Amino acid sequence: MTSSTDPLVLFMPSGKRGRFPVGTPVLDAARSLGVYVESVCGGRATCGRCQVEVQEGSFAKHKIVSSNAHISARGAKEERYDRVRGLPENRRLSCSATIQGDLVIDVPQDTVVNAQVVRKSAIDRIIERNPAVQLCYVEVDEPDMHKPLGDLDRLKVMLDKDWGWDNLLVSQYLIPQVQGILRKGNWGVTAAIHRDLEASRPNIIALWPGLHNEAYGIACDIGSTTIAMHLVSLLSGRIVASSGMQNPQIRFGEDLMSRVSYVMMNPDGRAQLTKAVRDAVTELTRKVCAEGGVDPNNVLDAVIVGNPIMHHLFLGIDPTELGQAPFALAVSGSVHTWASDLGLGINTGARIYMLPCIAGHVGADAAGATLSEGPHRQDRMMLLVDVGTNAEIVLGNRERIVAASSPTGPAFEGAEISAGQRAAPGAIERVRIDPATLEPRFKIIGSDLWSNEPGFDADAERLGITGICGSAIIEVVAEMYLAGIISEDGVIDGALAARSPRIRQTGRTHSYLLHHGKQEISVTQNDVRAIQLAKSALYAGVKLLMEKLGVDHVDTIALAGAFGSFIDPKYAMVLGLIPDCDLAEVKAVGNAAGTGALMALLNRDYRREIEQTVQRIEKIETALEPRFQQHFVNAMALPNKVDAFPHLAQAVTLPVRSTTVDATTGDSTPRRRSREERDARRNRS
Amino acid sequence: MTSSTDPLVLFMPSGKRGRFPVGTPVLDAARSLGVYVESVCGGRATCGRCQVEVQEGSFAKHKIVSSNAHISARGAKEERYDRVRGLPENRRLSCSATIQGDLVIDVPQDTVVNAQVVRKSAIDRIIERNPAVQLCYVEVDEPDMHKPLGDLDRLKVMLDKDWGWDNLLVSQYLIPQVQGILRKGNWGVTAAIHRDLEASRPNIIALWPGLHNEAYGIACDIGSTTIAMHLVSLLSGRIVASSGMQNPQIRFGEDLMSRVSYVMMNPDGRAQLTKAVRDAVTELTRKVCAEGGVDPNNVLDAVIVGNPIMHHLFLGIDPTELGQAPFALAVSGSVHTWASDLGLGINTGARIYMLPCIAGHVGADAAGATLSEGPHRQDRMMLLVDVGTNAEIVLGNRERIVAASSPTGPAFEGAEISAGQRAAPGAIERVRIDPATLEPRFKIIGSDLWSNEPGFDADAERLGITGICGSAIIEVVAEMYLAGIISEDGVIDGALAARSPRIRQTGRTHSYLLHHGKQEISVTQNDVRAIQLAKSALYAGVKLLMEKLGVDHVDTIALAGAFGSFIDPKYAMVLGLIPDCDLAEVKAVGNAAGTGALMALLNRDYRREIEQTVQRIEKIETALEPRFQQHFVNAMALPNKVDAFPHLAQAVTLPVRSTTVDATTGDSTPRRRSREERDARRNRS
Repeated sequence: MTSSTDPLVLFMPSGKRGRFPVGTPVLDAARSLGVYVESVCGGRATCGRCQVEVQEGSFAKHKIVSSNAHISARGAKEERYDRVRGLPENRRLSCSATIQGDLVIDVPQDTVVNAQVVRKSAIDRIIERNPAVQLCYVEVDEPDMHKPLGDLDRLKVMLDKDWGWDNLLVSQYLIPQVQGILRKGNWGVTAAIHRDLEASRPNIIALWPGLHNEAYGIACDIGSTTIAMHLVSLLSGRIVASSGMQNPQIRFGEDLMSRVSYVMMNPDGRAQLTKAVRDAVTELTRKVCAEGGVDPNNVLDAVIVGNPIMHHLFLGIDPTELGQAPFALAVSGSVHTWASDLGLGINTGARIYMLPCIAGHVGADAAGATLSEGPHRQDRMMLLVDVGTNAEIVLGNRERIVAASSPTGPAFEGAEISAGQRAAPGAIERVRIDPATLEPRFKIIGSDLWSNEPGFDADAERLGITGICGSAIIEVVAEMYLAGIISEDGVIDGALAARSPRIRQTGRTHSYLLHHGKQEISVTQNDVRAIQLAKSALYAGVKLLMEKLGVDHVDTIALAGAFGSFIDPKYAMVLGLIPDCDLAEVKAVGNAAGTGALMALLNRDYRREIEQTVQRIEKIETALEPRFQQHFVNAMALPNKVDAFPHLAQAVTLPVRSTTVDATTGDSTPRRRSREERDARRNRS
Repeated sequence: MTSSTDPLVLFMPSGKRGRFPVGTPVLDAARSLGVYVESVCGGRATCGRCQVEVQEGSFAKHKIVSSNAHISARGAKEERYDRVRGLPENRRLSCSATIQGDLVIDVPQDTVVNAQVVRKSAIDRIIERNPAVQLCYVEVDEPDMHKPLGDLDRLKVMLDKDWGWDNLLVSQYLIPQVQGILRKGNWGVTAAIHRDLEASRPNIIALWPGLHNEAYGIACDIGSTTIAMHLVSLLSGRIVASSGMQNPQIRFGEDLMSRVSYVMMNPDGRAQLTKAVRDAVTELTRKVCAEGGVDPNNVLDAVIVGNPIMHHLFLGIDPTELGQAPFALAVSGSVHTWASDLGLGINTGARIYMLPCIAGHVGADAAGATLSEGPHRQDRMMLLVDVGTNAEIVLGNRERIVAASSPTGPAFEGAEISAGQRAAPGAIERVRIDPATLEPRFKIIGSDLWSNEPGFDADAERLGITGICGSAIIEVVAEMYLAGIISEDGVIDGALAARSPRIRQTGRTHSYLLHHGKQEISVTQNDVRAIQLAKSALYAGVKLLMEKLGVDHVDTIALAGAFGSFIDPKYAMVLGLIPDCDLAEVKAVGNAAGTGALMALLNRDYRREIEQTVQRIEKIETALEPRFQQHFVNAMALPNKVDAFPHLAQAVTLPVRSTTVDATTGDSTPRRRSREERDARRNRS
């Protein structure tokens, strides 16, 4: 019972406030307001996790050791903690400090103890912590012949009494260990309690003798090419290490479909691919733990995302069904499982949570990206694109969301491009072409200089100029288009050969010579066609979704993944990969799938949020949509045959269109359409 | 909505009744009344589990095919079932047959389909079925590109829609199998759902393509000497096979304490003993499955009981703590775990439930016996005794229950008896002594004849007369007492050597010659002392518990275990193993621990019942009770020094007491007391 004369306490940064009777521990006040303050030791003032800063009393600068303090003076427990572990002067243990008057309490934002801000994502969002795992220290009664309750049973009694955990389950592997752990800790023990869903019973997943103050989790995005992982403290929210490695499944096939084929052709193919990916996740876990100086036994929770085929292979599910219509997922909902079943080398009791898959081609990675970028949390119409071999596309806002996958193929990753290469030192990453002279200048990875600047040659000599990396392919084709070298239908203008030696005939088509050194680096007509096909597929998917929602523009575009991080949004729009949008609203969001996994790791509420959101998402199968093909054909032109790019036109001078377009159907002259359709069909079949 | 004009339907044998609108399927009516009728196929009339007999209409003999039938005529579904599987004329499928008028429905008591009576225990109790595992057949929607819900997710949808299971968990091992099983069953699938506690989420533990109509469970009592097992159909309640085998741990030590010593002395001792007992349970499971013609993969649930040391070793827990004060159990509450963790060779998803232990010396076997005999369900004061190396004693009624363990030692099992042997052909099992001549007659296992009857010699020749089995030791000592050969303080009267050559001096004491053939079989003074010590320990425990409850008599005595099954209650009382009681109320109840396990297997409500009962039981540690020693000393006399045996005196002519007894303190003459105390102390230390 509180009255209006009780002290008023304001918690920052949440701004939550309430009145509490004099003498209330600050920790209790925080909890009753739903302010998350960590505590492992259960108010014994030994874990130090519940530190807060008392910024003001009576909403004026407060001195802790003043005679009329609004907060209790440091007691014996805090003095002891200070002696043993050190407690900065402005810090208090909220389990011990009690309210004596009006207060402003700052829950520290730093990442060493008890941070509520754990990571600013690309869109500057705060992840509030509410992990599925909690550490709870208790002191268990010694065995008593008169009350012969078992060790485990007395432990449960204390976890209920001190922490309110009733109805606890216990991981089987702990049962033989309980008696030893309790005795080793002299009846003091720290239990890791896992509870994800409210509907499921909380579970003791790990035990340590005495006070144990470390709990970590991993967030992992299993990509076809790269596996990325964060190691995070579940107690502070701090990212301890982040790392990545190549997916070793690449040796079974570069792209997803070749891996599915491997499974279909080899009796133990599925088992091999599952072992490869699990071994890799295990190895990467070992690596981030080593980097972060963390004992893998302290890793207690894991959140995994991945495309449907990676998701299935990681779980040991045959992905063959995903390689053919109806692209049936074996499991689409979120999966809760045990790390020990998958052999990840972390704590035996650790859990794994896998985000739901959206559809047969739109996986848990897209769900992670959705969770991270949050179209469902916005009024604005957001387009979220994650480009890989397939482009996963999510479009919507808080009202309605649609999602699809488009078969872009690997051109954006440089795979079908004659001079394409992976991003590595010496690869061309930026290109500009002078429209007057048609002369290019470029930058290579490893040098800050443009190719026409003094000193570049030395860098080039050192690094070598080896090819064009994925993101630069967009740029060079776009610059060629802006310079008039290629027409809006993607044909390199052979007549320009008279003006510039860089335009050269090769067979029946022409190419553009970007660099002439030890190695000739050219953009061929086929390269341009490959980019056109890829971008048409992406754009057609986007267009289909916009049509489903009945919108003619998007307010904001999030480009996820490595590709999205390196391309210049302007050039992406010049080529017509993405629809017109205020360029300031087009943002690279990095590994949004991994960020989503991180969010679900640090706050289990996000798991429910994405599960509910995925159920709401309307799934569009591009292969079933007759309009897709039409959008695809229309999108072959640069930037597009039917859609206007008013925002882009303000930023860039686009070449004048040379063909007449029927604005209703998007049809241009019959001759061109039929050729483009033929190209499209041949390349898609 | 039902009205008073609706037909009245009476279900037998439960007697539950209610009115239902015309057209209500009989199965629905049964369910709404809480009458348990099995159904696997979900009303598709394919599983045949829901068969009932329609005994009467309008409470007069009913003809099923009469024109004014009170039950619907057989429809197409039942006709099809009859053609495919056969349906007796008086049987109906309750999912298809509908109520058309007043009915008496007999839920069949046979054990092939849907029996409610599954087993009559020694006390003639019906076990109503409510197993933790239920089979549910569903037909799952095929994959749909427009609604890309996963295979598993669509299965869950149907299990919710058809069977009302929401919030289902799925055993991890099934996740990679779901897609194959669904396709193999052409989208028809049977799921085994496990739900023990209401508070826990139901779990899909097994899946089969198509309709699967078999689910079994095992109930197992792991004794120190013998492991006993029942294999039961969870669908019908029928006991398919029962078997036992020797506990192979015997090679590590005959009795429990020597096995604990083995664990203490050998670094991998615990692991060896755990492996031995798990292997034995696995082997016995294989055996009962083979006997019953049951595929071990169809075994989905198991209930295990055992004394605390067997319980701990089976779970892989070091039992060392149980070998010394304070006899701390690592876990006392019930344990839910997975068969696959223990490697029992049954279905991968099968569960194991272990009954709670009562105290460090009173295990899950005593809990099972308590559940079976049910003192907590009675107004009468019941004494439940399970005699082994320790005697586990439970005393009480619905108001209050106490339990203890007494250190009887192995004498009752024949281990410390000179001519003692295990029950086997040729062992003496019954003995009578003529008080006039002191000549014995006896029976041996394998022959129906008394030793003084014609033809016995041929049997004896064939079988050999090899020793005295455990139960007969009680009988021979009691007969010796009744014949006056031993005094009430247990001394063989050497003076009788003059009257009979069967009384012989050996050293400073005398012995009684029971048989003189190839082998001499005698009862020595030491044998009598060993029995006296054992029976005193048992009786002292019982007396302590009676004292705790403040009762001076018991209404009924249940003697559990093999020992209890073979001894004659009269002789047990003559020797004063058990307190005075109407002999008609002293019953051998067989393997009550195993019966309790069976009950908990067939009806999960019994699990809650015994969990709650065990919490209520007051645990008495005899080692901590000063009165125990006094009771022990008093109990050395035959039948007892202080307690009267009025019921026994009506049945048997007891020898006249030769010593004066102080009824208040139980003290007899100082000389005798001190000798008995000395004996007692020497033998117990």
